[in-house]
Amino acid sequence: MTNTQEQNDLANAIRSLAMDAVEKANSGHPGLPMGCADIATVLFTKVMKFDPADPHWPDRDRFILSAGHGSMLLYSSLYLLGYEDMTIDEIKNFRQLNHKTAGHPEYGHATGIETTTGPLGQGLANSVGFAVAEAKLAAEFGSDLVDHHTWVLAGDGCLMEGVSQEAISLAGHLRLNKLTVIWDNNSITIDGAVSNADSTDQVARFKAVGWHTIEIDGHDQAAVEAALLEAKQADRPTLIAARTTIGYGAPKKAGTEKVHGNPLGAEELAAAKENLGITYPAFEIPTETLAKWRAAGTRSQNLRGEWQARLAASSKKAEFERRMAGTLPEGFAAAMDAHKKKLAEDKPKVATRKSSQMALEVINKVVPETVAGSADLTHSNLTNTPETLPFTASDRTGRYMMYGIREHEMAAAMNGIALHGGYIPYGGTFLVFTDYARPSIRLSAIMGQRVVYVMTHDSIGLGEDGPTHQPVEHLTALRAIPGMTVFRPADAMETAECWQLALEHQGPSILALSRQNLPAVRTEYTAENKSALGAYTLAGAADADVVIFATGSEVAIAVDGMKLLNDQGISARVVSVPSMELFARQSDAYRAEVFGKARARVAIEAGIEMSWGKFLGEKGRFVGMHSFGASGPIADLYEHFGLTPKAVVEAATAQL
Amino acid sequence: MTNTQEQNDLANAIRSLAMDAVEKANSGHPGLPMGCADIATVLFTKVMKFDPADPHWPDRDRFILSAGHGSMLLYSSLYLLGYEDMTIDEIKNFRQLNHKTAGHPEYGHATGIETTTGPLGQGLANSVGFAVAEAKLAAEFGSDLVDHHTWVLAGDGCLMEGVSQEAISLAGHLRLNKLTVIWDNNSITIDGAVSNADSTDQVARFKAVGWHTIEIDGHDQAAVEAALLEAKQADRPTLIAARTTIGYGAPKKAGTEKVHGNPLGAEELAAAKENLGITYPAFEIPTETLAKWRAAGTRSQNLRGEWQARLAASSKKAEFERRMAGTLPEGFAAAMDAHKKKLAEDKPKVATRKSSQMALEVINKVVPETVAGSADLTHSNLTNTPETLPFTASDRTGRYMMYGIREHEMAAAMNGIALHGGYIPYGGTFLVFTDYARPSIRLSAIMGQRVVYVMTHDSIGLGEDGPTHQPVEHLTALRAIPGMTVFRPADAMETAECWQLALEHQGPSILALSRQNLPAVRTEYTAENKSALGAYTLAGAADADVVIFATGSEVAIAVDGMKLLNDQGISARVVSVPSMELFARQSDAYRAEVFGKARARVAIEAGIEMSWGKFLGEKGRFVGMHSFGASGPIADLYEHFGLTPKAVVEAATAQL
Repeated sequence: MTNTQEQNDLANAIRSLAMDAVEKANSGHPGLPMGCADIATVLFTKVMKFDPADPHWPDRDRFILSAGHGSMLLYSSLYLLGYEDMTIDEIKNFRQLNHKTAGHPEYGHATGIETTTGPLGQGLANSVGFAVAEAKLAAEFGSDLVDHHTWVLAGDGCLMEGVSQEAISLAGHLRLNKLTVIWDNNSITIDGAVSNADSTDQVARFKAVGWHTIEIDGHDQAAVEAALLEAKQADRPTLIAARTTIGYGAPKKAGTEKVHGNPLGAEELAAAKENLGITYPAFEIPTETLAKWRAAGTRSQNLRGEWQARLAASSKKAEFERRMAGTLPEGFAAAMDAHKKKLAEDKPKVATRKSSQMALEVINKVVPETVAGSADLTHSNLTNTPETLPFTASDRTGRYMMYGIREHEMAAAMNGIALHGGYIPYGGTFLVFTDYARPSIRLSAIMGQRVVYVMTHDSIGLGEDGPTHQPVEHLTALRAIPGMTVFRPADAMETAECWQLALEHQGPSILALSRQNLPAVRTEYTAENKSALGAYTLAGAADADVVIFATGSEVAIAVDGMKLLNDQGISARVVSVPSMELFARQSDAYRAEVFGKARARVAIEAGIEMSWGKFLGEKGRFVGMHSFGASGPIADLYEHFGLTPKAVVEAATAQL
Repeated sequence: MTNTQEQNDLANAIRSLAMDAVEKANSGHPGLPMGCADIATVLFTKVMKFDPADPHWPDRDRFILSAGHGSMLLYSSLYLLGYEDMTIDEIKNFRQLNHKTAGHPEYGHATGIETTTGPLGQGLANSVGFAVAEAKLAAEFGSDLVDHHTWVLAGDGCLMEGVSQEAISLAGHLRLNKLTVIWDNNSITIDGAVSNADSTDQVARFKAVGWHTIEIDGHDQAAVEAALLEAKQADRPTLIAARTTIGYGAPKKAGTEKVHGNPLGAEELAAAKENLGITYPAFEIPTETLAKWRAAGTRSQNLRGEWQARLAASSKKAEFERRMAGTLPEGFAAAMDAHKKKLAEDKPKVATRKSSQMALEVINKVVPETVAGSADLTHSNLTNTPETLPFTASDRTGRYMMYGIREHEMAAAMNGIALHGGYIPYGGTFLVFTDYARPSIRLSAIMGQRVVYVMTHDSIGLGEDGPTHQPVEHLTALRAIPGMTVFRPADAMETAECWQLALEHQGPSILALSRQNLPAVRTEYTAENKSALGAYTLAGAADADVVIFATGSEVAIAVDGMKLLNDQGISARVVSVPSMELFARQSDAYRAEVFGKARARVAIEAGIEMSWGKFLGEKGRFVGMHSFGASGPIADLYEHFGLTPKAVVEAATAQL
């Protein structure tokens, strides 16, 4: 510990704001900001490239607070650095409704928050995506436009979560040298000593996946600076294991779990300030200290000016700006329209996973910003096209991420890629394995990121792999996530439309796609994107007595059921429901029209009933799954579980 | 490779059955059984302790095929060893409906299948629970009754999944020396070479978490045997890194991804058999080879006989048998009844997480088989009681698992503990983090295991931690899982009843519990467990015009809403719904009674509406969440999101 008074003053500014804000809120986590204040001080005032005057500067370094509970570390730093929207009033209103200073950092609440964190491990897992996007963008646009670093601060909790292994093994494999993880090695978790629950040699663990590692005293600012600069030069991702004291400065509680997630209390707070030499009132940083922080905030203004000049002079300016703005290229809509015309001619009878690949063959040609990938199921998910050569340690131009058997990291990395900007990530696995990725899928939705989940093998229709591989509850569980759009297209035409919608809208999408071949049910070209309606009448008369709702692979069964009903002299109509969420956004009049005057309502879907309440009302009947699936050939399974035209007929006639 | 002809014959019996079964099914994974046949031969014929004549023998070694897609390795071995229910007819009907030989091993389908596997990493993660249960049971009943080993066969996919890190770091920390993982190190995944997606030094990785490691040629049966015997003697868990060739024996496809998940095809199959020296017809193992396998199956009969004699002579016989049968101790029901009487007197106003701890203080005293735990949130989840000292590397008598920040492994380990038998596991985290554990939670349900998830901080009621920590969709997403029972008790009385139900029934349960204090709404003692009805009238007249359904923390709000309606001269009734699943199992008559003749139906729950369809019907109104939550004090949030008595009144009057 050889810090100068000035170094301590700068760090104590973070500590005092954090202690005061948590105390005022009577809620929050002072331990990490106090323990990591030296690290943050060096990182923000000496090493990182950014400019509070242009917080969205594309070539800024990114900082990710993976240990999101330490949010006051970030908020304090942003205020001290001079981010305009992070006022002292926001700091004072930490954890209050309608303020930017939420309990955990929320993306979009304030500038300088690069990603939403809090669920442990997620920031670290995101960061891999940030670093991938940087490397790809640099390969595409040159290092004169793209050359920045991703810095992560992670705690023991982040490193214990399984997703951390997926993240660091992928980052090590891809040699993401511009990624640095600083581990707040404070030996404390909520339940007490880390040694109660873990004995991992973290440095050895990171070495085993190809990382450069550095061990330092996290309170020695000179050591921190040297480590950060060494990390910037590494040819691999770097772990800086920084030994710290949680709640540094608190005389009684420092180094214990007591300071992790509770206010210090008036007495300990006063004693901590005295201990640290903080003599100024709550929330009032001395002018001189604040001025030094603010000056540090302007460090990169010149760099940004030079960068802007380079961009202005670049032949790639327009494309770079389009990519960072996230606007789709001209020609995209026309290409999709042409594809729809071709489908109307060809009427292909293929699995919707194949339909998805056919759509991607159009998309990847005209949309250079897609970043494809799969969690080791490429030839099942059909997420590849001729354009998607692999992104590797030696070739950053590749557009295909070989995520490995890491569904969770795939989703987290896609969030990072989308958040970084410049790319639209999509990735595949089996629908049932959305369970593995759910924490990151939820964050796609919370952050409203354009991430496309290509989830194939979407029902018992996958056949012999059996119940562990057959999604039953997953459509419901995914529709349940606020802000998520779940698409289940019925054929190649709907798949094309759903892909277009997924790329055109600004939140995450799930495409649930069949393993099995499906007949074309939309055989005519329409300029209108019918799937955008969420639900629409596919066949039958508007005044039919029976309305049959169906999605995906069950739409063709519904049509067969309709024909059987017609044979019995009962008028019926089939409504395809590619997206419940889009349907919910339609006008009351349109929705009433879709329901029509039918006396009987049936819904058929190879999943559970739960999400169909609004469609079925009181008397409607559901034909679907009521249990887990089973292992067997698809035809046997559909018969066994009663997903048949006959069952549709029985459900309808029982009501009439 | 110095295998004898006999060794090869034994291994080729597995290979031939696997090739033939996959070929006949025209579906499945021949690569692993062919590649791991030497390992399985040694493990089953030389090392493992088990007896096909008593497949449930409590002191048997457990074998877990974590790479569940290689199911034919297990089925072939079980048939060859003489497990009676694994007939050649079952082998011939691999992957067919209503047969025991599902695509992936399904627990309960055939004896010898210790756990359901297929979702990668799960078997490995389970195995930690098996080893914990063994160590605890040995500490409790002595090594003369309990002394067995847990063997896991895992592939690259298992090791790439994040949950594997949680599993191995916990196992290493706990020094579970009777756990051995054999890694089928074949360098191939579905998308091709492992090196496409991963560069992990697995041996170094396992060493970093405290494992003993051995590296061998997995086709050298002598080397395999030496390694397995060495592992049995280790003082730590052991990784055996066994270099193998996937699809060993197939002349063109061995060593490639082509043999992973597809039938060989007639030509390659014939060539493989020729290559391996297999001259017998499909499904017809030569008598001599089969006889050797069957003899190996009887190896441990004497050991079992001796064990039975020791059990018969043991003073602990009755308790051991009760524990392995899973019957609750006498006195449990009476203790819970007494607790309910006390609650009726005390009428405590506490959070339901605290109510849960109060119930546990009764339960853990009279039910010695509970194994408590938390994913590093003990003092938030309140899963501890005076009885629950930690289970550690040096003290196997402990009843508290310090799972660390490993929600996924906690769930997987609990599955393993329950499957092993002798214990009832329960474990805590925040409800929102069920997302992290969902693949294992689903397996609890598929396997119908008695695992109790103590999920606290169950809504926006947790306040300041904000949207990343506030469950909104989780009640729906969990209710969606077939076979899961979700409890959301309203006060201490219901919490006691729900705990009793969770322990008395044979599947998994989720207890969704509040962070915030709640008033007692059930203030009278009833001998009947009202929560067992799933839903019941808590207050108001049977013929009320308005029925208000509510769960958990919203029941008290519903009661306040009812009173406001009464003040306006509108008769209303409150139905508490501690479990939708239990309500669905009641008689039509009872359910009709609960709905009554109300002209208006309202449901209030601090989650989304999706699971309420059956309660609300066409016209009912829902008061709840329609978005993610926010960071702020609880009172502000309930007001902001409109979860108030006034909102209940408005919803009711709008309908009337």
